[in-house]
Amino acid sequence: MINIGIIGYGYWGPNLVRNFFAAKDCCVKAVADARPERLQQLVKMFPSIAGLHDADDIIYNSNIDAVIIATPVFSHFPLAKEALLQGKHVLIEKPMTSSVEEAQILMELAEQKNLLLMVDHTFLYTGAVEKMKQLIESEELGTIKYLDSTRINLGLFQPDINVLWDLAPHDISILNYIIKDHPYSVNATGTTHTNNAIENIAYLTVNYHSGFIAHFNCSWTSPVKVRMMLIGGNRKMILYNDLEPTEKIKIYDTGYNHTTDEEKKRVMVDYRTGDIHVPKLNTTEALLGMANDFIGCIQEKKQPKSCSQIGLDVVKILEASNKSIKNNGCEVLLHAPDKVAKHTYYETAIQ
Amino acid sequence: MINIGIIGYGYWGPNLVRNFFAAKDCCVKAVADARPERLQQLVKMFPSIAGLHDADDIIYNSNIDAVIIATPVFSHFPLAKEALLQGKHVLIEKPMTSSVEEAQILMELAEQKNLLLMVDHTFLYTGAVEKMKQLIESEELGTIKYLDSTRINLGLFQPDINVLWDLAPHDISILNYIIKDHPYSVNATGTTHTNNAIENIAYLTVNYHSGFIAHFNCSWTSPVKVRMMLIGGNRKMILYNDLEPTEKIKIYDTGYNHTTDEEKKRVMVDYRTGDIHVPKLNTTEALLGMANDFIGCIQEKKQPKSCSQIGLDVVKILEASNKSIKNNGCEVLLHAPDKVAKHTYYETAIQ
Amino acid sequence: MINIGIIGYGYWGPNLVRNFFAAKDCCVKAVADARPERLQQLVKMFPSIAGLHDADDIIYNSNIDAVIIATPVFSHFPLAKEALLQGKHVLIEKPMTSSVEEAQILMELAEQKNLLLMVDHTFLYTGAVEKMKQLIESEELGTIKYLDSTRINLGLFQPDINVLWDLAPHDISILNYIIKDHPYSVNATGTTHTNNAIENIAYLTVNYHSGFIAHFNCSWTSPVKVRMMLIGGNRKMILYNDLEPTEKIKIYDTGYNHTTDEEKKRVMVDYRTGDIHVPKLNTTEALLGMANDFIGCIQEKKQPKSCSQIGLDVVKILEASNKSIKNNGCEVLLHAPDKVAKHTYYETAIQ
Amino acid sequence: MINIGIIGYGYWGPNLVRNFFAAKDCCVKAVADARPERLQQLVKMFPSIAGLHDADDIIYNSNIDAVIIATPVFSHFPLAKEALLQGKHVLIEKPMTSSVEEAQILMELAEQKNLLLMVDHTFLYTGAVEKMKQLIESEELGTIKYLDSTRINLGLFQPDINVLWDLAPHDISILNYIIKDHPYSVNATGTTHTNNAIENIAYLTVNYHSGFIAHFNCSWTSPVKVRMMLIGGNRKMILYNDLEPTEKIKIYDTGYNHTTDEEKKRVMVDYRTGDIHVPKLNTTEALLGMANDFIGCIQEKKQPKSCSQIGLDVVKILEASNKSIKNNGCEVLLHAPDKVAKHTYYETAIQ
Repeated sequence: MINIGIIGYGYWGPNLVRNFFAAKDCCVKAVADARPERLQQLVKMFPSIAGLHDADDIIYNSNIDAVIIATPVFSHFPLAKEALLQGKHVLIEKPMTSSVEEAQILMELAEQKNLLLMVDHTFLYTGAVEKMKQLIESEELGTIKYLDSTRINLGLFQPDINVLWDLAPHDISILNYIIKDHPYSVNATGTTHTNNAIENIAYLTVNYHSGFIAHFNCSWTSPVKVRMMLIGGNRKMILYNDLEPTEKIKIYDTGYNHTTDEEKKRVMVDYRTGDIHVPKLNTTEALLGMANDFIGCIQEKKQPKSCSQIGLDVVKILEASNKSIKNNGCEVLLHAPDKVAKHTYYETAIQ
Repeated sequence: MINIGIIGYGYWGPNLVRNFFAAKDCCVKAVADARPERLQQLVKMFPSIAGLHDADDIIYNSNIDAVIIATPVFSHFPLAKEALLQGKHVLIEKPMTSSVEEAQILMELAEQKNLLLMVDHTFLYTGAVEKMKQLIESEELGTIKYLDSTRINLGLFQPDINVLWDLAPHDISILNYIIKDHPYSVNATGTTHTNNAIENIAYLTVNYHSGFIAHFNCSWTSPVKVRMMLIGGNRKMILYNDLEPTEKIKIYDTGYNHTTDEEKKRVMVDYRTGDIHVPKLNTTEALLGMANDFIGCIQEKKQPKSCSQIGLDVVKILEASNKSIKNNGCEVLLHAPDKVAKHTYYETAIQ
Repeated sequence: MINIGIIGYGYWGPNLVRNFFAAKDCCVKAVADARPERLQQLVKMFPSIAGLHDADDIIYNSNIDAVIIATPVFSHFPLAKEALLQGKHVLIEKPMTSSVEEAQILMELAEQKNLLLMVDHTFLYTGAVEKMKQLIESEELGTIKYLDSTRINLGLFQPDINVLWDLAPHDISILNYIIKDHPYSVNATGTTHTNNAIENIAYLTVNYHSGFIAHFNCSWTSPVKVRMMLIGGNRKMILYNDLEPTEKIKIYDTGYNHTTDEEKKRVMVDYRTGDIHVPKLNTTEALLGMANDFIGCIQEKKQPKSCSQIGLDVVKILEASNKSIKNNGCEVLLHAPDKVAKHTYYETAIQ
Repeated sequence: MINIGIIGYGYWGPNLVRNFFAAKDCCVKAVADARPERLQQLVKMFPSIAGLHDADDIIYNSNIDAVIIATPVFSHFPLAKEALLQGKHVLIEKPMTSSVEEAQILMELAEQKNLLLMVDHTFLYTGAVEKMKQLIESEELGTIKYLDSTRINLGLFQPDINVLWDLAPHDISILNYIIKDHPYSVNATGTTHTNNAIENIAYLTVNYHSGFIAHFNCSWTSPVKVRMMLIGGNRKMILYNDLEPTEKIKIYDTGYNHTTDEEKKRVMVDYRTGDIHVPKLNTTEALLGMANDFIGCIQEKKQPKSCSQIGLDVVKILEASNKSIKNNGCEVLLHAPDKVAKHTYYETAIQ
């Protein structure tokens, strides 16, 4: 039985409590939040859980085995670090940390202390993402050429992170989970309409040496809610519409090929459209799957599906996107050529 | 009565013929196309029109008053130039030319010769675009903050121009027509999957000093057809879905405001959602409106709605997008700046 | 403070408990269900509520003020009757009873004992239905001409009542709530594919002397879920799509008129299409509104929105629909007529 | 080469002319219409065709081999009869005639004279209907249980026939084409809002001894256009949405079964949902297919897909629907028990 303490009882808090209630072999012992009204709501719905004002009462509580951190992003690092130092397994809400450096420190600490460090990228536990991963791994789509994601709606504006840090982690974690290839650079553009240097609209391109390209369109200021991802292979393509109640994934038997007309020195492209297939998906609640993965991996000392490496890779792309936006959209490399200059970025020389 | 000759009878040709047939005060006298099978089709449907093999038989025909150029982009400039030199009014299919320089030469020539030079940006004549222009000019939307356009489908791959030059002219012409503000730079990224250095997926951001931002997502390799544009003001927002048979424009009484909490030194953003309004639109065929504008402006010596300046401004953005893609997405200024900015690329000064 | 006991903890039970928990001035004291596994689930989620095996322990409990009956339809009457006899206020799930006669006996009993008898027609408390009622009462739609409802999906097949008794009460209660006119007869057709004389597909027409017509299409065997209602006036029309997350109500500025061409002795009909308006709706949970109405009406001795008369009127139409289906779709009068009409079937006179 | 004359150049006329132009081995020689403005339009677009004022100039013209009748329904019979008497092959627009008797007279006459008599049920030539027929014949759907059709929109009100005669022929012809079983009776209800005894809303149920049921919902007064048909088998089900540009047919791997629990004397029904498949359809223009079938069947003396028997069966159901509506929705039998009383209808005795 794993005893759990949760720090932060905001928007996502009740979902975490409810699902860790339903998960196997664990018990939610305490929840900490500095806001009295949040604790009142907690106790009304879950009278068996201790509602605490101070996160330290969880971190330094010897009866707690695992800590879940569901606070604003800037506090993820100090809370997670202290919890690891106190010997707790740690689950952090996405995005993992405010910087690559912080994420790497936490990962090293977890390794030293032999503790589980996991990030809650809930989407990896959905039936839709699992199906897309299968389709790609079975090579049913052929060679994957692009991923194009749109995640836009109205509000909730975050006061400390921009729209990419808020919304794109979902889609970037999916990208990293289902695409084996590694990106080498990003470009990002965006703008702020709220006078606080926090972009409410932003566009991110992630570049790969293979020609594969990923693009993310994020906004807090769209009148309509869109949660759509296109994934194109040369044999088949996927439309993933997360707002569809049942037909979330459509597989198009659609592809294209190019041939070179040697005589005319010209590339000829032809394409093919065919049937569409809508697979039935596993509809188990994703957050419950995540909770069970967290508990199971603590017990069996395994790496979870939503491991800290995916959390780190998401932060790498987000950090680079910040640099690109601040430098007028210029390309920012994700890896230093010789692994020396860790966090610098390299703009490509022009001409 | 204006006598018309059309050069090029490809995909768009029959639509041009049919609508200039229906337009007032003009007569389609001849169509030229080097492909015998295209001329056969022409003559079968329109026995009264002369089908010619050689464009010169139109350009040098003294009975022809106006020439319509509906050929591949690279040939727009030489054909239009020769037609203007021969004293013909000229209508060119979009995009106007392969370069800003070519467009400028044609515009100067038309001015010298006192002839009409017009570009067929058909969308400017749709009821949907007219309604959006009205809504913006009446300030019903408040201050306009962004335009976000997606125009994707499968095929037809063009052999000579990339997907931005093929698809984005529609949306960029709408941008230039409805937004009074002037852009100062662009960023573009893209990739090719067809081994011919012609991007089949590309993303374009157009930047404005005011904070307004425009973004264009274009692809020839999407399994689904999307023709969607979002335009957001701080008071109201528009969703323009061109694939909707009747509800093309939805006006959302949706907005957001920011206030500064002086004490906490924090910007607070709140937003509002309200009713949605779907106006009935003028459904007259856009191409017929364009045809009548061309003929009317020749007769009355006026500038048409889809004037050569809009054609030039579209080519400016397209040319800059090419430079940005080839330079890894870096910012490309549209006008020569007073001072040298970092990380940017300057195209030849215009004007 | 009203003390509440709930009889029946099936599919709808947890929703009732949760919303009466949230309602004002009441307390859910006990829930009765004969199935041990249902009581286990209850106690796990709501440890403060007594889980009882026998409904009598609620009905004869002097601490209980009001009883909610959420059991199969055939048991509504005996349970509600006994509860009223024991002096409890009663809320019954829809449909109220298995017959008009039963409903009338309960209504008389409640009146004699001065107790509240209410039926849970939850939809009457939705923002969508409230808006439609407003639009009709304000005469914005003009004269109402028809209501056309489709409520189809796959499963859950009921073992004791047919698809009209299961699904149509929602829509018939809306009809009765928003349309002031009174129906005079019904026709119904249907079929069973499950070898148990219980129709899984049925169609119901409700006829009015004014020319207004209502039609209900219900099925448990549709591959797609549809929850759609059209309401047409001669000035405007409504599309109510309950599956739309936000745009549930669309108001079409669409109408038609007829004029008589005296010379040709012919009626000419012309129609008009115009803008569409999508009003923002109240999104408070309907079931909570129903719960607060029940408690408030007990306290203030008022008639609730979803009163027993509406419950009775729904059962009248359902009972008549049964007779029509069993008699090959023939017309069944809802009220005893003054004179005998041809081809019709008379149910027992009411009142 | 078959020489064709067309009588009636209304809404559908230009489509007929265009497609018979494109069809093989035939030539449209003349079109007759009493309205001068319609003939003007004809001659402008198709200068090679003779525009005539009088239908007799087609019927009695010895150079005409085949006559197409595209006039109001009441005139179908006299025109077709005279054309057959003059030895012409005849194609009639749907519905074939105003009565079963008229249709039978035409069929006998065509048989005597050895001429082709065909009805233009265009939908039978669509890729969607062809695919549905294949799916049913291959038994992929299992036993077919129901067909449910909705065909509603605003306008065009017909002055001489009600909404079922106007809109339902499309769907009834599909029913008769794809379902082998024979109906035995119909029920219909409806109402008129235009003071001319012509129903603008009507509902039709077609009953089969096997338990299969078909239902048709037709309206000229809906604010939205719907063209939807559901076909359910016990193994799979189809959604046919004719307004979808490409995904017209969706096949749901969805079914249900019933078993009898002998102990409890109860029927248990369980159901299954699975994948959805959207087949690519043949997109050849249906009207061209119909035109080629007409010409081909004249040449090869064969029966066409849209044969006169289907035309007659449609009229049978329509005629019975009229009787049912006029008799308050009562059941009307389609066939006399002993084939004697041909055109009488039999209402089922009510108790």
